[in-house]
Amino acid sequence: MRFELTKDFLAELRVAVQTQNETWIIQHVLGLHFADIAEILGELDNNQARYIYYLLEEDVQADVLMELEEEIRDRLLKSLSSKEIAEQLENLDSDDAADILGELSDKEIQEVISQMEDDEAADDIVDLLNYDEDTAGGLMQKEFIQARLDWPVDRCIVELRRQAEDVEKVYTIYVIDNSNKLVGFLSLKRLLFAKPKTKISDLYQSKNMIAVKTTDSSEEVARVMDKYDLVSVPVVDFQNKLVGRITIDDVVDIIKEEADKDFQLASGISEKVEANASIWRISRSRLPWLLIGMLGGILGAQVISSFEGNITAIPALAFFIPLITAMGGNVGVQSSAIVVQSLAKGNQLEKIITKVGKEASLGLFNAMICSSIIFGISYLFENLKLAIVVSISLFIVILFAAINGTLIPLVLNKYKIDPALATGPFVTTLNDVLGLFIYFTISLFIYHM
Amino acid sequence: MRFELTKDFLAELRVAVQTQNETWIIQHVLGLHFADIAEILGELDNNQARYIYYLLEEDVQADVLMELEEEIRDRLLKSLSSKEIAEQLENLDSDDAADILGELSDKEIQEVISQMEDDEAADDIVDLLNYDEDTAGGLMQKEFIQARLDWPVDRCIVELRRQAEDVEKVYTIYVIDNSNKLVGFLSLKRLLFAKPKTKISDLYQSKNMIAVKTTDSSEEVARVMDKYDLVSVPVVDFQNKLVGRITIDDVVDIIKEEADKDFQLASGISEKVEANASIWRISRSRLPWLLIGMLGGILGAQVISSFEGNITAIPALAFFIPLITAMGGNVGVQSSAIVVQSLAKGNQLEKIITKVGKEASLGLFNAMICSSIIFGISYLFENLKLAIVVSISLFIVILFAAINGTLIPLVLNKYKIDPALATGPFVTTLNDVLGLFIYFTISLFIYHM
Repeated sequence: MRFELTKDFLAELRVAVQTQNETWIIQHVLGLHFADIAEILGELDNNQARYIYYLLEEDVQADVLMELEEEIRDRLLKSLSSKEIAEQLENLDSDDAADILGELSDKEIQEVISQMEDDEAADDIVDLLNYDEDTAGGLMQKEFIQARLDWPVDRCIVELRRQAEDVEKVYTIYVIDNSNKLVGFLSLKRLLFAKPKTKISDLYQSKNMIAVKTTDSSEEVARVMDKYDLVSVPVVDFQNKLVGRITIDDVVDIIKEEADKDFQLASGISEKVEANASIWRISRSRLPWLLIGMLGGILGAQVISSFEGNITAIPALAFFIPLITAMGGNVGVQSSAIVVQSLAKGNQLEKIITKVGKEASLGLFNAMICSSIIFGISYLFENLKLAIVVSISLFIVILFAAINGTLIPLVLNKYKIDPALATGPFVTTLNDVLGLFIYFTISLFIYHM
Repeated sequence: MRFELTKDFLAELRVAVQTQNETWIIQHVLGLHFADIAEILGELDNNQARYIYYLLEEDVQADVLMELEEEIRDRLLKSLSSKEIAEQLENLDSDDAADILGELSDKEIQEVISQMEDDEAADDIVDLLNYDEDTAGGLMQKEFIQARLDWPVDRCIVELRRQAEDVEKVYTIYVIDNSNKLVGFLSLKRLLFAKPKTKISDLYQSKNMIAVKTTDSSEEVARVMDKYDLVSVPVVDFQNKLVGRITIDDVVDIIKEEADKDFQLASGISEKVEANASIWRISRSRLPWLLIGMLGGILGAQVISSFEGNITAIPALAFFIPLITAMGGNVGVQSSAIVVQSLAKGNQLEKIITKVGKEASLGLFNAMICSSIIFGISYLFENLKLAIVVSISLFIVILFAAINGTLIPLVLNKYKIDPALATGPFVTTLNDVLGLFIYFTISLFIYHM
């Protein structure tokens, strides 16, 4: 029932495109869902993709354009005239159209807008371009359905039929008063089953009305829609006038982007980089983290060199350097990850503090197990004295790492810095240097006792 | 317009609960959205939460119950009688009711089910309990709206009105043939604006009909709903008969859980653990990773000890051990994160191979920059020979780490193991040991030249 893109299909398709076998393409591609067609175009080179794109019906072209990955869309847009782009935009929802326009230069935007025939649609898109793309205003679309408090159901249905032509998906009807202020909502289901002469004011719901402001951040919009399980949310301006709506599909994208960003930060990659960016550009998002790691390594070298006498006397001390740094890093990252997730869920500080307490006792527990094991192994490996140094050091390093791992994200968060930074090379590097210092200081004590 | 949970509010609320000030609670809490009430209960202790819970209206109680975090809900459920739980379940959608029942023991489930008055609802819930919770069957609800091909619009509206009482949110009407097979869908909007005598068979859409099977995994359901931008998806059995539907709010939860899991794996935490789990239970999800790290540390010690002569001769070699291991770890994690994200997006192997190529050249670039810097620093720090050893080693270590980081997730994925494992302590540990070996082997060559 669902289409699946296979290697064989792609091979056949490439032959069909090369031999310009339109019959095959019409039969196998044009009937597919636009999301599938977009997936297929993503696997083709530019000329092949363009060939298929021009075979599509106009409204399917627009949908496919929207579903394409950004870099592939950019390439395709470059090969379209501003007239062609303008036609596509008229087939799209205003938010999608604004997103596509946003990828063009100011000069191109002007050209495309001037080619649009539907002035109202053009106005909507231009208006949306004014909002910051990371706010509710930048996410919203101008297509939504609204009813006035004083309409009866039958008039409402007539009006809605007119409005609904522009609105692809209707989930909720927003109810406004005479000054366009949002006062509540009405489900289509309720409207469908109401008597023709009932007034909207007797049908609509105002309790549990959730709206966002144009200036709310996209993360806030995602949080609100997730918390209240909404499929669409109305957007109001500072006077509480209804100006747009945001649908759940855009928010799913935000949630995924947020998760990707956290995952990348935890892996030491700082900014989102397009896959087709230059090596230099990609490197910019990673090199800073590597340099932090290097700095840590150099500080570590400094710490060890200040204990050079120890190493000359007992070279076996050097054997366990990687163990000490690796364990400090691993424990620190584990603890910080728990705090970062807790912060991301918007937990209250009190609850987080309970978590920190738990992390501390867990650190103690893990430290005991790990240092007992290493005591046994290093005793067999070398001698009792070294075993004592390594196990005591490991114990203290694990404890410190657990504490650092929990405190650093909390501090970052307090200063409005993304706490996910802490799970990356940052906390690992700090724990490396601290761990080495603890290890060699303890060795100094034990061997000079 | 939206409620925000503040410290002050919580303090006032606690006083009101302690003094049993019902007026305050009715005024400030009972009018809130159920998601907000659930958030508030999450911050209270068990007795306080129960006190407020019993003040709520019955249908709000059910909604709040569903929104509570799992551990808080479990505590609350324990203090309810099976009769009370049965009443709550009847106010919930079948999928939510089944989720709650799933948290109880078999004996409790039987008791609760026997107390339910609505037999049809009880049957639906029992049926849902048969499906694996990580499949479409385990996610779906039995409440959906269906219309037959041969109905006219007016009959359809009458039938739907009857069905719709059970269905909280209607997005799409599913259209079935005479043998209950799913053949297409119809938007409420289309139904609303159709003439009374039009047949459903003339209105419904069969193109772009997307459905999932009961046995599809929840990840697959999430992927499909995200790809096709669906707010609800019908679920069919092996005979293509319509048996349920899944709504977007459940899928948003899956997407978030998936992201959390990846983030945790990358941080060396293996299974989801409830916040109220015992220390021993939490430790089980982390200790294995720490032991892998320890094993790496011990292998590292073995590698260094086999080069003990080098260290005795040139103690300064030990200084740069942390630098070598840290850089190998950082670079490896960065590269594997990129591949893991690419795999998660379902990219074709061809595209991933392009990425691997890019990672390799990026590795080369970063290796050149980092090793040039470290050459200068270690030259100033120690001497030319050591600088040559450290910089050449670092160059090779970074290259190897980048290659390992890209290949390991690909190999894991090939053997159906979650590639996100690779971004955790796994790849770091491997790179540590390999890096040390490279470093000391090179030092042997250079110093004996």
